[in-house]
Parts: sequence; C-alpha cells; structure tokens
Amino acid sequence: MIIVCKPLVSEEKIDGLISLLNEQGIQTHKSTGLMSTVIGLVGDTSKVDIESLEALDITDKVRRVSEPYKLANRKFHNEPTVVDVNGAKIGGKYFSIIAGPCSVESEEQVVSCAKAIKAAGGTFLRGGAFKPRTSPYVFRGLKEKGLELLLIAKQETGLPIVTEIMSLEHMHLFDDVDVIQVGARNMQNFELLSELGKCGKPILLKRGLANTIEEWLMSAEYIMSGGNADVILCERGIRTFETATRNTLDISAVPVLRQITHLPIVIDPSHATGKSALIHPLCKASVAVGGDGLMIEVHPQPEKALCDGAQSITPQQFASIVDDVRALCNIENKIL
Amino acid sequence: MIIVCKPLVSEEKIDGLISLLNEQGIQTHKSTGLMSTVIGLVGDTSKVDIESLEALDITDKVRRVSEPYKLANRKFHNEPTVVDVNGAKIGGKYFSIIAGPCSVESEEQVVSCAKAIKAAGGTFLRGGAFKPRTSPYVFRGLKEKGLELLLIAKQETGLPIVTEIMSLEHMHLFDDVDVIQVGARNMQNFELLSELGKCGKPILLKRGLANTIEEWLMSAEYIMSGGNADVILCERGIRTFETATRNTLDISAVPVLRQITHLPIVIDPSHATGKSALIHPLCKASVAVGGDGLMIEVHPQPEKALCDGAQSITPQQFASIVDDVRALCNIENKIL
Amino acid sequence: MIIVCKPLVSEEKIDGLISLLNEQGIQTHKSTGLMSTVIGLVGDTSKVDIESLEALDITDKVRRVSEPYKLANRKFHNEPTVVDVNGAKIGGKYFSIIAGPCSVESEEQVVSCAKAIKAAGGTFLRGGAFKPRTSPYVFRGLKEKGLELLLIAKQETGLPIVTEIMSLEHMHLFDDVDVIQVGARNMQNFELLSELGKCGKPILLKRGLANTIEEWLMSAEYIMSGGNADVILCERGIRTFETATRNTLDISAVPVLRQITHLPIVIDPSHATGKSALIHPLCKASVAVGGDGLMIEVHPQPEKALCDGAQSITPQQFASIVDDVRALCNIENKIL
Amino acid sequence: MIIVCKPLVSEEKIDGLISLLNEQGIQTHKSTGLMSTVIGLVGDTSKVDIESLEALDITDKVRRVSEPYKLANRKFHNEPTVVDVNGAKIGGKYFSIIAGPCSVESEEQVVSCAKAIKAAGGTFLRGGAFKPRTSPYVFRGLKEKGLELLLIAKQETGLPIVTEIMSLEHMHLFDDVDVIQVGARNMQNFELLSELGKCGKPILLKRGLANTIEEWLMSAEYIMSGGNADVILCERGIRTFETATRNTLDISAVPVLRQITHLPIVIDPSHATGKSALIHPLCKASVAVGGDGLMIEVHPQPEKALCDGAQSITPQQFASIVDDVRALCNIENKIL
Repeated sequence: MIIVCKPLVSEEKIDGLISLLNEQGIQTHKSTGLMSTVIGLVGDTSKVDIESLEALDITDKVRRVSEPYKLANRKFHNEPTVVDVNGAKIGGKYFSIIAGPCSVESEEQVVSCAKAIKAAGGTFLRGGAFKPRTSPYVFRGLKEKGLELLLIAKQETGLPIVTEIMSLEHMHLFDDVDVIQVGARNMQNFELLSELGKCGKPILLKRGLANTIEEWLMSAEYIMSGGNADVILCERGIRTFETATRNTLDISAVPVLRQITHLPIVIDPSHATGKSALIHPLCKASVAVGGDGLMIEVHPQPEKALCDGAQSITPQQFASIVDDVRALCNIENKIL
Repeated sequence: MIIVCKPLVSEEKIDGLISLLNEQGIQTHKSTGLMSTVIGLVGDTSKVDIESLEALDITDKVRRVSEPYKLANRKFHNEPTVVDVNGAKIGGKYFSIIAGPCSVESEEQVVSCAKAIKAAGGTFLRGGAFKPRTSPYVFRGLKEKGLELLLIAKQETGLPIVTEIMSLEHMHLFDDVDVIQVGARNMQNFELLSELGKCGKPILLKRGLANTIEEWLMSAEYIMSGGNADVILCERGIRTFETATRNTLDISAVPVLRQITHLPIVIDPSHATGKSALIHPLCKASVAVGGDGLMIEVHPQPEKALCDGAQSITPQQFASIVDDVRALCNIENKIL
Repeated sequence: MIIVCKPLVSEEKIDGLISLLNEQGIQTHKSTGLMSTVIGLVGDTSKVDIESLEALDITDKVRRVSEPYKLANRKFHNEPTVVDVNGAKIGGKYFSIIAGPCSVESEEQVVSCAKAIKAAGGTFLRGGAFKPRTSPYVFRGLKEKGLELLLIAKQETGLPIVTEIMSLEHMHLFDDVDVIQVGARNMQNFELLSELGKCGKPILLKRGLANTIEEWLMSAEYIMSGGNADVILCERGIRTFETATRNTLDISAVPVLRQITHLPIVIDPSHATGKSALIHPLCKASVAVGGDGLMIEVHPQPEKALCDGAQSITPQQFASIVDDVRALCNIENKIL
Repeated sequence: MIIVCKPLVSEEKIDGLISLLNEQGIQTHKSTGLMSTVIGLVGDTSKVDIESLEALDITDKVRRVSEPYKLANRKFHNEPTVVDVNGAKIGGKYFSIIAGPCSVESEEQVVSCAKAIKAAGGTFLRGGAFKPRTSPYVFRGLKEKGLELLLIAKQETGLPIVTEIMSLEHMHLFDDVDVIQVGARNMQNFELLSELGKCGKPILLKRGLANTIEEWLMSAEYIMSGGNADVILCERGIRTFETATRNTLDISAVPVLRQITHLPIVIDPSHATGKSALIHPLCKASVAVGGDGLMIEVHPQPEKALCDGAQSITPQQFASIVDDVRALCNIENKIL
C-alpha cells in the first residue's frame, strides 16, 4: 500500500503518521519527491483500513498494491482447487455442467428434467426452491417442498444437487443439498457468507450484478476464512448500459480470475443474457476461454415455465450443447 | 402490458394466446399491423410474469406500460406520505437531517456526536452497530453493544435512532430502534424485506448500488405489501464507470421519484461520494432539488474513525451545513 | 411503434393526434383500455421522431417495436454479407485475422511484423498511423508517413491494410488503404460516417465505448445509406464499473448481432482488455462464440511499443494463437 | 507515478529500468519492500506513457499519483477562470444561463425564443444548426441556414450565440459565433479539439457519455495546449444502467471539478434527463451545488419541436426557472 502525501506537508506530520503506522506493526518506506512524499507500507496490509488513511488531512491518495485477499489468492496457493462432490469434480482438469429448471415446479417436471440432463451428459442438477423475485406479487418458489423434490430427482438420477439459499434461517433445510448456491443479490450478504464458512459444504458463489472481481474474491474470502475452502465462483453477467441482453456476460473475468485465484470458475449464460437463443454459442465460448464449468437453465417446456422461461432451453437443445461442449473439452484437455 | 408478436405468426396461434390470457382473467385488445400483431393487456397486470410471455415462440417483445408497483405508486395515493417518529417528521413539508458516525465506537464518541448533532439542528441520530464490510479482516461493528450505546445517546439527547439491520436473525435486538435501515447491499434481500413488512417500525430503504428506480420501488412494495406503509427511500449513489467519486449520486432520482411515488426521499451524500469535501455542496443541492431529508456521516474526529473516515465531516462542518440547509429549506417552504 | 396515452386523456385529443399521424402517412390502430389508450403505429416508422411524440402532453410513453435500421437488418437481407478485399474474405463461412502493431513506428518494425503475421497465418495487416490519444502530450502516430510504411509492408507481404481514419480532412490520404477503420471514439462522428458511405471501400466500424448494439447498427446504417454495403462490425469492449480489464468485452454481442444483422462481426480482445495475458483465451472464445474474425495487436517487441504495449503480444505468441484459432475454425466449419 | 515491480524480480532488471528512466530525464526513488520493489517517478511525468511501462515484464502495476493535465489544473492556476464574451461572463462569481431551442427551425421560432429568453433573464442563446442524430433518416439541422438564423436572433436581442460544431470542415462557418460548442460525442475528437485550440473563441466542452472527469479535463487540455484558455466545461449526464432518465446527471462532478480545475462549469439538465418535468428542480440543484451556469432547452412550442421536444420547456416555464435560479444565486453570492 502506498500513501501519497499532499504537497507541502511538513516533515513532522509525515513522520507522525509513520510512527503511528509503525506502532501498529506496519513497516514503512519514505520516498521524498519534488512535489510530494510517498510512504510505502510493507508486509501484510490486509487489516489496514484504506478509508481511514484517506481521511487524514495530510493524505492525497492511497493506493493498494497488493491484493486484500489471501486464502483465495493464487500467489499463496498455486495449484488449482478441485471441488469434489461425491466424485463429481469441478476445477483443474475437470469440467462440469450444472443444469436444471430455474424453479422447481413439480416432481414430474424436476425428475423428467433431471433424467434428460443425466442422459445428455450433465453432471449436476440445479433447481430453485427459494426464488429471489423483484416483485412481491409473483411466484417465489416451492421452498421446503421444492428441496424435497430436488432430492427425489437426485435419488432417481444420482446427480448431485445445487440450489440457492436465500436466508440464514433456512440453513437447517439444506442438510442434504450437495452444493449451496449464493445468488448474485446475496454476494455481499456478509452474515450469510460467514455462516456458510462453517457449513462444511461446497458453495457456488455467484458474482453480484455490480460487483468487481476483487469484491467477489473478498466474498469468497469471507467463506474461506470461516474454514470452508470449497468455493466455486460463478460469473453470471454484470449490469451495464446495454439492454439487448439482461446483463453483460463478463467473459474476460475467466482468464483474469485464472491469473489471481486457484478457485474453479463456472459460467452461467442463462442469467447473463436472459435469452435462450444466445445460450448455445456462449456455452461454447465458455469452454474455449478456459472455464471450469457451465450452469444452464433447462426446462422440459420453457414456454410454460413459471419464471425465467425466456432464458430456458429444452432438453433437446441441451443435449446438442453438451455434444459441442464435449468436443471443445477434448481440445482443451478438460475432462467432462 | 403489450405483447408484440413475431412477424408472420398465424392468427390461430395468436388467438390461442389471447384465450389463455383471458382464462387468467386478463382482458386483451388485438391490433393487427402490416408487419406484426400487437396484443394489449388491460387491467391489473402486476401478477403477469413478463418473462414467461417473452418465452413464447410467437412473442417478439413484451413491453410493460403500467408500473408493477401499486402501494408505492402515486397514481393511487396522491398525498405525500409523512413518516412521523415521535414527532420527528420526514416527508411532505417536513425536512429531516439524519446524522451520526459511520460506526458506533464508544459511548463517549456516540454521545458527544449526538449532542453536537442535536445542538446543530440535526433531527435523527444514525450510527452503525452492524457494519457490512467488503473484507472479513476489518472491523465489523460493535453489534449488540453498539445498539446499546445508540440508545444511551438517544436518552441523552432525545434524538430518535436510525441504524442498519444486516440479518433477520438480529431482528429481536431492534425493538428500541426508531427507524430500521436496510443497506444498499440488502435492498433485494427479499426475505428480510418481507419480515420488515411486519415489524411495525419505519424503514429507511437504501437504493442498491446497481438497482433501477423501479426495482427500488418494488423493494419498497415488498415492505408495504406486508402491511408497513412507513418506508423512507434513501438515494446513496449508484455504481458507474466514474472513479472520481466512490459512487455516482443520482440526484435526478429525487424529481423522478416525486412524480411516481408518495414516499419520502432522503439523500446520503456521504456514501454516494466517499469524500468529505463534497458533502456540503451536495447537501445544498439535495434541498434545492426537492429532497425530504439528508443522511450525513459526522464524526468528532474523522481522522480516527474506524471505518469510512474519508467521508465523515466534523461537528463544526456539520453545523455549517445545517445553517445552509435551513436557509434553503426556507426558500423551499420546507420545515426543518 | 406504440404510443401509450396518459390516463383520462380526452378522446378528442387522442383523435387529434391520430389525425396528425395519418396526415404524415402513418397508419394507426387505436386500442382503448381501462386505464389508458394505446395507439399503434403501422408501417415504416423509421422517420418518426420518438422524442417529439414523447413531448406531447397526452403521451405517457412511446415504445418502438420495430428496429430503426433497415439496410443492416437481417429481416430484409437474410444472407450473411461477405466482405471481399482482393480475395481476403470476412463474413459468412470466412474467418479472418487482422493483426499488427498498435502504432506504426518504423519501416523495420512494420515490415518485420507484417512478415511474421503473414507467416503465422494472419490475413490482414493493421497498424495505426493516426492515433487517438487521451493526452495531447504523448505520441500521436506517424500520420502520412505511417500510411506510407503500411503500404511498403503490404507490398512486401501482400497482406491488405486496415488502418484508422480520424478526420474527414485526411480522406485523400487513404486511397491505397484496403479497409478504413472507424475508431470507437468516432462511432458517432456522423459527418465522417456519411462521407465514408461514399468512399467505395470496406469500413471496419468499431463499437463506441458506451454505445448500445442498436446505436452501433444505426452508425452502420449511416454508412450503408450512403451506398456502401461493406461494413464490418468490430466489438472492442464497453465501459463498465469493472477495472480489472480496461473495458468489458461484450462477447454476447456476437450472437445478438447474428440474429439481427447480416454484417460480419470481428472481435478485438486487445483493446477490450488492455492486457496481453488475456488475448489468447479470448481469441479462442471469439471463434467458439461464432465471430467472423479477430483484430489483434502484435508487436515485435511489446515492451518497446510507443503506445498500448501492455496489450500487445509477440509474433511467437501470435503464431500460437493462430494455431488454436485454426483448430477451432475447423470445428466451426469456418475457413481461415 | 509509481511502478510496482513483480515479486522476486532481480535487482539487475530493476536497476536497468531505473537507468532507462533516468536517461529520459526522469528522476526516480527506489523503495524495496518484503514482497516487491516500488519505483517512484519524480517531476513532470505527463509525457510518460503509462501503458508502455505496464507492458514491461518486470512491472506488476503502474499508478499515477499526479494529474496528467497541467493547464487545466488548479494546482498551477488557483484563480477561477472567467470567460468573458462581450461582457457576458461565466465563471468565478458570474453565473450564466444559456438557453434556446434544441434545433433552429425557422427565423420566427428562434427570434421569438431568443426574445423570450432575453426577457426572462437568460444570458446566452443556444440553438443547434448542425445536429448529431443517431439515425441517418431523421432531421439533422438547417446547417448554414441555421447559423444565419441564430445571427439574426443575436442582432435582435444582443444575446451572444452558443452553437455546436460537428466537423472541422465547417470551421469557416463559425466566424460570427460567440461560443463554439463541442458535443458529447465529439469530446474525444482530438483533431477537432486541436484545431479549436487555435480558433481564438471560447469553447463549451460537453462531457462525453462515458468519459471520466479526468478524460474530460484532458480534452480541455488539448484545446488549452493549442493556446486557447477559454474552455467552459458542461456536464450533461453520463451513461449508466438507469433508464428512468436518458442519462444520469453527475452532479458531484461540479464540486469534484471545483477542487481540481479553475475552469467554469455549466450544467445541462435537458440532455442529462431528456424529460422536461425534471429540468426545474435540477436547475435549482445546479446553482446550490456551486455550478457557474446552466444550459437549458427552451422551445416556444415543445410539442412541435423537430427534435428533442421531450426535454424542452416553454418560455413561461423558463421564466419561472430563472426566477428561482436568481433567488439561489443571491444566496450563493453569484451574479446572474
């Protein structure tokens, strides 16, 4: 971390700040320029509060030069993390396809969907039991009943389950869920993240709509600092001025993350675009760019889906996507 | 709501959709153009799922023409809502100034701050006991202890308390709080909003970093549809590409909201900009633009603040702001 | 186009508007609902000024339902446009790789770079002679001299030239250039676009930093309406809140455009990200997502580049990229 | 400027870079930390190419600590610039109101509008003769004829004229124009900016839709470095995800700019919002926040305006705005 002092600040004040920092166990280097003095902070600055430094009357700017995340940082853990869910693996050389309906609607729907996904080569079943909806007046999921139906589908197909938690209060209902999903709107629900750090289950952490990659890794850090190393990152689009797609899929996030973290990265083109016609090409791009997995909404009858039908694809389309993904995985030396 | 059908769709399919809609109690008007047919939906369409309609294979586009919010809508409630907290009023002709430290740190700090705010003319005391922080490694608030200290400050000054709730699980701790704040990151924590609809206390609902004005009103609608009509909206900046300020204060949101909702609107320039030097001019702009109140971070010693010091102002600066705000309130016929 | 009237507007006023529209040769359909009347405009509404309609005191909202672009619209021209530059083709089944230095610096630099590109399998040479730079104090290109050096490189290698025009006044210097590039900052320089519509050369039109896909197609329409059908669209990233990359590559734009336009689409990962380490994976994603070509910055010695060195790759890295792109083109049935 | 080297880079390489910088006349300070070495660049770094430094293989990050603009920088010119146009002044203690129709349509329209503006207390007449329009199919201004009509209105009222230039090629037509406006889409048309630096007339420089405050000042620097010190900055909204307004007025830009530049700052709420109902409150906010002037679209019959009618206000509404602006100018000690 670097503190750039304002021009013409007295040496005395600068030395006062340096003493203050040293007292807190932070080593410093002072560099006096023509216009201003720069103080370099050495060592672990993850606990230094950048805003407090900026508030000082002698400070012009504070610039962080090392990353504030440690456990998620590739610098300290070079090997890719492979999350292993009863043999279904994500990360490193393992590619995974998580698929299923946006909302769980009925046993018939979720079981037939799971069978189709299994048959096509999908590796995880996803399905929403608790649904975050912008309006209080529309369908918000089958809740506990939805979780039960997912478990039936798991029994029928053997596919591990990924489903979203919306509140700490529901944690006890997730005992048999294989991977707990944190939705985009909860990416900075810090109380929830802290608790998930203790739950002993893999967490699929979606990126928030307006969150930077660094903030996303800091949220992963919340979970990991609680003792849970199995975090899967899921890029699902960010909010921009463009309205042709629901959000803008930030595909560059994949190679950016690859350089700075060891955590596996999954891409969700369904929520990113909100348009089923775009899913197939974006799935292919996700493999080619080096992703570790996909999350895709599949619905036996998308036109009858209770929510997010516009972004769902049919089991037939899904099978065709898996074929193309498999061909690309072969080129990329990924195991699907 | 308007459904634009794809070109060259058969009459039969269009009539099938119209029948389906009519069965759900929705009246329709069909308008056949040269290129495509348009179906107008009449009446209350707040429960119609726009995405399901978009998913139909005959649909090109769906456009909403009436607002999805009802209780927050000025069309159905023309008089401005005045939230009255033991005589401290926000909304209509009443202007309010909510001020206090970002984080509650000690009894001495919060009480001295509260006294200074009271003396300067502030009308509410704010202070964070539970603090959402991006990093798991920094100070996250005094929690229960912080709430206790706020209540002491309330006793000493008579100022009603505004403080943030971060999780449903803490609800029982907020019994003596006057106004419960929902932070930007929780604006779409729908489980929390639903619960706050039943709590019987005024809610200050901050706008999410990447949320539209319509989504914000839908979150107000969540609270209101639970039976709680006392929602105060708080604009606190949105996330854009500009980095000169922490966020971009969307001041136009105030007159936009004034046209479409009856709820009071408060502006928080501290979080919007993250820079104390910008607070004073933005407070003045907030009155002139027609806001109902301000939320300002004040700290006896901003340079020693444990968090967000960069955006805090001193009690002296605060008093000067209140003077200017009062002068502008007189021009605007607002009672401070 | 649909005009939603305000509630409770008199029939007389609505009929007045309808008469006005009819006088302008626009057919209308009136649909009277419970809350408001909707007027549908039928036929070619591309000359209707949406803002003028919105200004009427009886108008609540105006919604466009058909695209404002005609010549670029796939609805009226279903076959993909193939731009043929002396046998080098972009579009349809032809994939192209446009590569070269950000700035032309010397004959040695550009010729050696062109030879390396040719040897590796690149199909066009790009290089900046006129450089748009944010600061007036840094290198702004060799200008005329730069164009001369590009032509020498073309003679040496046979690679057609793509280079940027910054001002109408330089048009006469571009006689021997094969493809004229319009930079992101000039995407809405309408005077320039109009003139390029008459120049008889293919135009590579970069997307503006903050322009929607629709605005981009409207700029293509400017060129096409002047009589020039050879427009190549180039996605090069949009401006968002994310700072990990210089811009955010909007890869979804490729399949979105594929549905609505017949024009070829090229992707420039160099400018989109500003980071050479991200180019290779994004090139692969660009083929997999269905793009028609790539634009890549290659520099013999990136660390000595006068501008944009951070995003340049070496000829060796480029050769490796071309190999991977070729393998993916085979899968995609594209001819490189 | 600060260069953070990658971890574990050899001393030899670092010293090589330092020598290279020193050869270019740049003084350096080396600071060796536990994890990495930091090189501070001292003195004038405005000509240093930040991207070239970032491209070096030993570089991790480069951070600018001093502003790249000099002539526009308040550090070197503390007194506010007052632009004086034949006695009509903008900047310092002088507040100005620039008003007029979006497009010049007829002599009757522009003269009657000018008279109304003059009568109400407006100080400049604006009007578009050359109009940038997204579509090639709609009205693009009366061009030369429009400039003539503006000059007639100037003769009739004495109001100085502000009008937009769209291309270098039209420069000779602007001889009698008082203030030349550079539109948002041309903010980074660097060829145009350079030429305007030599024209000897005040320039009103609108902020680009997606440009940072720093880029905006760099564009001012282009004009100023050509010898033209009379630049007026005009904030007119930036592009964000919010669609309730056409753009998002970045009102915080005013106090931000006040701290870093001496140039006058004008606000254009008409283009920022695109909605006439929002103009009045935002004009008031613009004075209260410390702006130096306003740019407002006024049209005798907004509902008949050929373009941008939605954002125009009537002469009656304008007179009411001027009254309120005047009252606020009195409080702010500004002379209107």
